[in-house]
Parts: sequence; structure tokens; C-alpha cells
Amino acid sequence: MFKKVCIIGCGLIGSSLARAIKKNNLAQQVVSSNRSKDINKKVIELKIVDDSSSDTKKMAEGSDLIIIATPLSSYEDIILKIKDTLKNNQTILTDVGSVKRNILRLVEKNIPEKVSWIPSHPIAGTEESGPESGFSELFRDRWCILTPSKKANEKDINLLKTFWQKVGSKVDIMEAEQHDYILAITSHIPHLIAYNIVNTSLNAQDEKKTDIVKYSAGGLRDFTRIAASNPVMWRDIFIENKDNTSKLISKFIENLEDLKKAIEDGNGKKLEKIFVKTKKIRKDIVEAGQDIEQPNFGRK
Amino acid sequence: MFKKVCIIGCGLIGSSLARAIKKNNLAQQVVSSNRSKDINKKVIELKIVDDSSSDTKKMAEGSDLIIIATPLSSYEDIILKIKDTLKNNQTILTDVGSVKRNILRLVEKNIPEKVSWIPSHPIAGTEESGPESGFSELFRDRWCILTPSKKANEKDINLLKTFWQKVGSKVDIMEAEQHDYILAITSHIPHLIAYNIVNTSLNAQDEKKTDIVKYSAGGLRDFTRIAASNPVMWRDIFIENKDNTSKLISKFIENLEDLKKAIEDGNGKKLEKIFVKTKKIRKDIVEAGQDIEQPNFGRK
Repeated sequence: MFKKVCIIGCGLIGSSLARAIKKNNLAQQVVSSNRSKDINKKVIELKIVDDSSSDTKKMAEGSDLIIIATPLSSYEDIILKIKDTLKNNQTILTDVGSVKRNILRLVEKNIPEKVSWIPSHPIAGTEESGPESGFSELFRDRWCILTPSKKANEKDINLLKTFWQKVGSKVDIMEAEQHDYILAITSHIPHLIAYNIVNTSLNAQDEKKTDIVKYSAGGLRDFTRIAASNPVMWRDIFIENKDNTSKLISKFIENLEDLKKAIEDGNGKKLEKIFVKTKKIRKDIVEAGQDIEQPNFGRK
Repeated sequence: MFKKVCIIGCGLIGSSLARAIKKNNLAQQVVSSNRSKDINKKVIELKIVDDSSSDTKKMAEGSDLIIIATPLSSYEDIILKIKDTLKNNQTILTDVGSVKRNILRLVEKNIPEKVSWIPSHPIAGTEESGPESGFSELFRDRWCILTPSKKANEKDINLLKTFWQKVGSKVDIMEAEQHDYILAITSHIPHLIAYNIVNTSLNAQDEKKTDIVKYSAGGLRDFTRIAASNPVMWRDIFIENKDNTSKLISKFIENLEDLKKAIEDGNGKKLEKIFVKTKKIRKDIVEAGQDIEQPNFGRK
């Protein structure tokens, strides 16, 4: 499918992609670039990629598919490093970032006219980080959203769509603005709330010297999984999706104040009505097959 | 261990207990009482109990262990129905409710002097409800907290402790006030927040006609599990634990406003610091063996 794929950032997502590309024979060569020498060494040793180096330009050279899989705040640096290697009508450039609007424009203005810049967002992941935590089946049955730039041509969009399908994903195409709004609801706000509840619990624990870990199976446990996600990655996501995040937090707080008042007033009817409504969505998620973590077929 | 155990309310917890009692031969006879005729019929058919009827008094008669496993708002009714069947020095009365302070007193003032009233709270459950959803291993490796009343004697406390250990639990004994505070942190607030985030997402979905189920694997999914818990049960829990819940919501909102400001200011350092802190607790939970749902050994 591709001659040379270059993955910039071989973390959970990057290394899972490298594994999936090799497993499904989607490229003749897969290379990666990481800032850390240790990681470059490790991904070669583990045979996740054929070559890896901190010299991003060198790794990107001659690639027909380049995938940026690093935190959003590093994109500008990366683009400046690789832009001279991007060839008109020869390179597809994509990423796997969780926010699209700003980076779509940032990259667009820095690359040649006829390089197909097609941001991707695979809605997949675990709370773990680093190349050891990746596995080839991470994307299976998960959605991947493409938000093509004006510079993307139809043929390349279809090729990239097929690429994601070959690693197991279902593909949707939409505007970056719409993507950022939907993901703020389904992913960014849930993560922020998870971080906040765990943080609030830790503060309460310090204050009263109680043991919240011991009794976490009562509910808190469910939040700690996503509150264990990569801190740098999420720091960047919230800041990049500031507008949507900020508006939705306000709505969340408004609704929570409402619940608080219902509790204080002993308004059981109101509480029950809301809880019945929220109960229904679980059934929809189970029916849509989005309820469970990926079985780790390829995981070690 | 017991001659006759009466379980009032054969839902997820009640029916799991009935199954565990039978499996571990902890009683000669297990009966239950449910308001619904269909459920009384079903639990006999499924051989979860030996007898079942909506006549609570009749079922409780002659029991040496009575377990209330219904929503908190039904306790007063139940106690009035069964109080004449409780025999001094012969009956242990317990429950499985999630809030203790108020019901401890409510029951205490309505029962004979020498009936051992020892509230229990098994920190176990799933998002499902009803007798079909129960399974005998639900309590295995989970904590169960006892908050004995003044009317409980030492011998009976030890007997009930052994009972919970025999169904697989680890047992802690504490004051009702302490219980209600810890559980507000580890269970009640997490549930309320889960309900609130799912509700907020549903509202946003209605507004923009987007499909939040489709992309729920990005994080929202993790909240829908506990936001699918029994609405009546949780309505009662929040209202019964009003003081703790209300105070902790305020702290939660305070912290969330703080995060919101950090996002709006682009204060990445502050965000990262909090996220690194919350990441650590996951490791503690995994190490404490409280990270996964019970494998459903006995589940159909």
C-alpha cells in the first residue's frame, strides 16, 4: 500500500499503528522518529519498526505516508523539521491527535501546496503510554475520524480511509470544527471530569486521612482508569480545545448545581427522572459494541 | 451457621447473597420477601431461595438472620412490618444499604432492646438490577463495612463478620458517620458525577443532533456504566447522605472552576501537575486488587 511509512512518536498509538502496519503488510518499510535515544533503540530491538532515529528529517525523507503521533504542542516543531522533505503529489501527511481545528490550519500554512494533509483521529486508546503498551488490534472496531484539509486530494483521502479500514477501523469524514465539538463531549470533558474527581478525592483523603483506594470499587475506580491517561497529551488537548471545553464545563457545572439543589431539597422525583434518562444510554453503547476495552489479541 | 435467613428484597445484592449462602451452606433455609408477585415466583423457580412471599412478616418469622436489601426509603415500612417478629437474643438484623447514619438510628428506636442490629455495607455491585443479575461471587475480595448499633452484642458482631468472610469479603468495622463520609468520596460523588456527565452529554447531543454513542469509546463510555445503576436506589442514597454529598459537590465545583481557569489561561504547567498526581492513584488501585470487575464465576 505504501513504500515507506514514517511514524513520528512511537507511543501507545504510534507503536500500535506500526504493529498493525507490519501485521497487515501495509508498507514495505516502517520507520519512526522519537526524541529519546532509548525509545529509538527499543522500537528497533522490539522489531516494532525497521529503523528509528531522533533525526526526524532523515526518517521522514522519501516517505509516502507520514503520521504525527506526538502531543499537540510539538506539531509546530515537527512541521518545521520535515516540511522540506514533503513532496507535492507524493506525500500523504496525517496525525492521530485529538483536537483538529487549530492544527489543521497550523500545518496547512507550513506545507507545500500539493501535499495531502489529512488529519486523522482514531477513537481508541488505553490509559497506558509508551511503545511497550501498544498492540496491533487497538483500532479494531473503533471509529477513526478524518478531517481533510483543503490541500487534500480525493484519491489520497480514499487511500488513507482504506488504510484505516485495513487496521480494523470504521471511518467517518467530517469538518474539524464538528470533530472538536463532538470529541469535547464524548472524550475531553469526560477526561477532565475524571481528573477532577480523582483530584477532589485525593484532597479529601489528605484532609481526613482516610483510605480511598481501599473502597474505590464503590465507583471511584471507574474514573481512575481514564484519570491515569498521559498527562502531557491531555494538557495539550484541553488547551487546544479551549472554547468547547470551557463552554461544556459551564453547562456541566450548571447541571451539577441543579442536582445539588434537588438533593438538598430532598427532591427525589427530579433525581429519579434524570437517572432513568441516563440509564438508557448504556444500553445503546452496549448495542453499538462500544462498551468494552479491546481484547488485546496482539498484546504481550 | 444460621437456621433461617430472610432476605428482604431479592435484587442484585439480595439475590447474590442468597446464592452465596446456598453455595457455601451457611443456612438451613433461605427465604425472601419482595413486593412484586412476579419476583417472588421467579426467585423460587430459579431456586435462588426456598420460599418467597410479599408477606414480609411471615417470611421474617423465626429467622435468626434478617437482611434488608431494599432502597433506603423503604426501611421504615419494613421495620414496622417485621418488628414484632424480632426476638431478643435470637435475631441478628442487618442490611446492605449504602448510607448508615440515619437508618442506624431509625431502626434502633423501633426494635426490641436485645436484637442485634448491625448494618452492613458490601462495597460490591454492578450496573445491573434484579434477581437475574445476581451471582454468588459478587462479594469475593470486596470490602464489607459493618457499623454496629449500640444494640449489637459482641458475639453477634463476630458471627456476622464471619458470615461476610464466608461469602468472600474482607470486613472492616467503623462508625456510621465515618462510613458515610468515606463512601461519599469513593462512591456517592462518583455516581452523581457520572449521572451528571451523561446527562450533560445527552443535552448537548439533543442540541446539536450529534451521535455521542458512536464515539463514546473516547472516554464517555467509562461513565455510562455507573450512570446505569439503579435510579431509585441512588435517589435514596444521595438524599440520605445529603450533608456529605452537598459539601463534596461544592469542593468538586471549586476544583473544576480552577481547572477551567487554567485551561482558559493556557496554564499547561498547572494542568500537568494535577494530572501527574491523579495518575498515581490508578497504580495503587491495581496493586490493591480493586481494579477489575468481579469475574463472574457463578453468573449465568
